[in-house]
Amino acid sequence: MTDAISTQILLASRPTGWPTQDNFTTVKRELADLKAGEVRVRNEFVSVDPYMRGRMNDTRSYIPSFQIGEQILGGAIGRVVLSADEALPEGTLVSHQHGWSDLVQAEAASFKAVPDLPGVPSSLRLHILGMTGLTAYVGLSHIANLEAGDTVFISGAAGAVGTAAGQIAKLMGAKRVIGSAGSAEKVELLTSKYGYDTAFNYKDGDVRGQLAAAAPEGIDVYFDNVGGDHLEAALASFNDGGRAALCGAISSYNTSEVPAGPNNMTNMVTRGLKMQGFTLSNYLFLSPEFGERMGQWFAEGKIAYDETIVEGIENTVDAFLDMMRGANTGKMLVRI
Amino acid sequence: MTDAISTQILLASRPTGWPTQDNFTTVKRELADLKAGEVRVRNEFVSVDPYMRGRMNDTRSYIPSFQIGEQILGGAIGRVVLSADEALPEGTLVSHQHGWSDLVQAEAASFKAVPDLPGVPSSLRLHILGMTGLTAYVGLSHIANLEAGDTVFISGAAGAVGTAAGQIAKLMGAKRVIGSAGSAEKVELLTSKYGYDTAFNYKDGDVRGQLAAAAPEGIDVYFDNVGGDHLEAALASFNDGGRAALCGAISSYNTSEVPAGPNNMTNMVTRGLKMQGFTLSNYLFLSPEFGERMGQWFAEGKIAYDETIVEGIENTVDAFLDMMRGANTGKMLVRI
Repeated sequence: MTDAISTQILLASRPTGWPTQDNFTTVKRELADLKAGEVRVRNEFVSVDPYMRGRMNDTRSYIPSFQIGEQILGGAIGRVVLSADEALPEGTLVSHQHGWSDLVQAEAASFKAVPDLPGVPSSLRLHILGMTGLTAYVGLSHIANLEAGDTVFISGAAGAVGTAAGQIAKLMGAKRVIGSAGSAEKVELLTSKYGYDTAFNYKDGDVRGQLAAAAPEGIDVYFDNVGGDHLEAALASFNDGGRAALCGAISSYNTSEVPAGPNNMTNMVTRGLKMQGFTLSNYLFLSPEFGERMGQWFAEGKIAYDETIVEGIENTVDAFLDMMRGANTGKMLVRI
Repeated sequence: MTDAISTQILLASRPTGWPTQDNFTTVKRELADLKAGEVRVRNEFVSVDPYMRGRMNDTRSYIPSFQIGEQILGGAIGRVVLSADEALPEGTLVSHQHGWSDLVQAEAASFKAVPDLPGVPSSLRLHILGMTGLTAYVGLSHIANLEAGDTVFISGAAGAVGTAAGQIAKLMGAKRVIGSAGSAEKVELLTSKYGYDTAFNYKDGDVRGQLAAAAPEGIDVYFDNVGGDHLEAALASFNDGGRAALCGAISSYNTSEVPAGPNNMTNMVTRGLKMQGFTLSNYLFLSPEFGERMGQWFAEGKIAYDETIVEGIENTVDAFLDMMRGANTGKMLVRI
């Protein structure tokens, strides 16, 4: 028999602006005996992601809000420790969306077996070989229609999606890739490790001016993780026919103020620009295509990554808050 | 011999904010003898259009700025009165972009012969059967990807493009078409004559609330002629997967203030919205497709239109200013 006590993190109250520890509560629950068709999974890594902040609000969105008193859901990877379903025998490595807990029990169909390859840490299934890598790929290839020779700007470039996006853009033939991040250290990493041709620190101010200086011939594609002044800067630098993939707007997630929109929307018309928001849930059908291309790039040693790892399920909320404040480089993860 | 004196309206100085008569000057010029390959055309109608305001500024755009001391260019229709090119014999009805004058002389290749059909006034080639009709068609069909069953919102609905767009949307199978205009009279016309299911007067205030009330189940397509608060209202009312065709932003053309952008851009991500600006110059290849579909609708008596006609080339600037202030219903034209 395996241990049957699950530590789970619940939403205690809805945050206003920045979340605090008080918005969450940790409980220990004893799991019931396994029913037929169920499996029990001990998580190896739990993911904390920016989009989760939106689910803490009680607003209409593409995925249901978290409910008060219920567990925070999200990506995680673990191993089957007890199985009552022959499709997922004990020992199988699985990814799932059951979120912030150390031990999960649910129907086998809600878990997905993933390849357990030597030399490939399981944590990678939560970022570069998983949802964040897929997000970067979908945004560049299918939303922004990146073409060889394009000049590409990526905001939030040192984050999990941004570090993947810069490399994918170069591998897809971008002529020049420009990134923005929030510290000199991150800016340095972007060019030394992640294939960015140039990068700037948005905290130095004047995002519009810094982008214009980095892209004197304009940009063709913008991958937006930030919104606000970054989107406005991209609209100012776009060449005719420019395309923006809007993936997130972390600049507005924790403010209760109404954010100002870009003041140069008329460029949309005069330059024939396209802007499209997307959430991965509508593009999961691209997983096989992504798996094939990314798998090859990864096997060829062309993909770099960073992980910022926090130890212990009890520190998950800290990890989430640090990630929202930009303390991570690459993917922020909780190791169980 | 035909008269050889051409009355021409030139840009005298660049407007700041609203243009005035002082920004223009009228000259009379004697035309040279016709060279081989040239034709002389007496205009029947000259077009005044919102996009012309942008060309009066000295800013980077999709078409060159008008130059001070040079004639205002734009759409017009006239008849060949003297020809030195066998492709366009005298009497041929032609459309062209030589703009604000009564008598034009230029290479035959810069004019386009158009069908001269009984019962079809030549003025229609400047709107419902010409560029404005094509603009409405391209925006709905190829930019916003209108599908049967969609709910559609059109701003500036009583203008030349808007009156065409409402009818085209219905003919393409829209379930419900909602328009906004700037007077009770225009609002009435939209529903009584132009096939709109409902309409509201944006001058009554609270565009967002009025649109939400008119579209309780949300909108799928937005055709934007206005920008500003109208675009913000559309973003608030969009269903998942909504699409906006941005055609113009008359609300900002005559202000030297920097316009505020929509404060709800995060809906782009959470609802998976697409927004695309366009100018007709990139979509002229759709003229034959439009000509065929609109020709059939028109022949079947399904297309209504209005013209607001000002008499005399000397009143062209007044016509332009009145159009910018919304004095017209349907297409504003100058009859020569």
